[in-house]
Amino acid sequence: MPGIGPKSAQRLAYHILRSSKNDAETLSKAIVKVKESVRFCKTCNNLSDEEICEICNSGDRDRSSLCVVEEPNDIAAIEKAREYNGIYHVLLGSLSPLDGIGPSDLKIKELLERVKKERFKEIIIATDFNTEGEATALYLMKQLQSSGSKLTRVAYGIPVGGDIEYADQATILKAFEGRRELK
Amino acid sequence: MPGIGPKSAQRLAYHILRSSKNDAETLSKAIVKVKESVRFCKTCNNLSDEEICEICNSGDRDRSSLCVVEEPNDIAAIEKAREYNGIYHVLLGSLSPLDGIGPSDLKIKELLERVKKERFKEIIIATDFNTEGEATALYLMKQLQSSGSKLTRVAYGIPVGGDIEYADQATILKAFEGRRELK
Repeated sequence: MPGIGPKSAQRLAYHILRSSKNDAETLSKAIVKVKESVRFCKTCNNLSDEEICEICNSGDRDRSSLCVVEEPNDIAAIEKAREYNGIYHVLLGSLSPLDGIGPSDLKIKELLERVKKERFKEIIIATDFNTEGEATALYLMKQLQSSGSKLTRVAYGIPVGGDIEYADQATILKAFEGRRELK
Repeated sequence: MPGIGPKSAQRLAYHILRSSKNDAETLSKAIVKVKESVRFCKTCNNLSDEEICEICNSGDRDRSSLCVVEEPNDIAAIEKAREYNGIYHVLLGSLSPLDGIGPSDLKIKELLERVKKERFKEIIIATDFNTEGEATALYLMKQLQSSGSKLTRVAYGIPVGGDIEYADQATILKAFEGRRELK
């Protein structure tokens, strides 16, 4: 399990041994239940306990703007920032030829179909800023450039609270490239 | 000393006790020598062993572009990225009213005089992305807006290699605000 090394595993195992039989059964049932009740939204592949997720179902969202992310966790992070009010499409991964993950392993076909049908004003590509995420962004850009939607990419730069002195070279390069005029 | 807690201090002290008298004398002389030989560049306040620093003296730099930073360390970080080829101005700090640091405690008067004399095409404000750095950027913007130079600010955003999922809310907000069109 991610983030659980041998030491944590031992600690968790001892905790379960020490706890009551009742608690152990509740935990075991919860683990099965989460697999049964949580599924992927049929429209955007976000996690959901209904067929269509809360965001896709909401009447308050701007349906002319689509944000493409790698994982449902990314939606949670973006929602916390309360800046974006459009809808999402989750790819459920990123292109990674070395691991044998190609376009057909991601929800790209579904994305292209959605874009054809729903005609978004803007498509924001918010894949991660690592090699796989950048490759995915490039691939999507090529696939979507004839869609008629405005394609944008979330900004690279120095994070809020960050010191120039401690930023890595690649980030400084991107932050200078992406500098904006002050008005 | 920054970054040296009681444990590191003890370790360093023991190291000096264990090393030869010769080594201890070399270190002690080096400490005095650095104070004697390194000074601030008369033009840009960068660290230098000459009156004018290497960057200000160089014939290869673009003299129509000025990058304003807080500390000489920032120049070192930006130079490593090899993206920027203009010249610099070091403020030697940032505005911090709570610590009693106002505009007159920084090299702002010198900056305004330089800008008046040298007429830069672009002034890039690269102060840090924390409260003090942002306040300084805002103050400089007001002081410089009638200078005729194009004023820009290095970009906020997700750092290179960064995951959207782990970015903080303020950074995601800025990264969405600063999104750029893909072409």
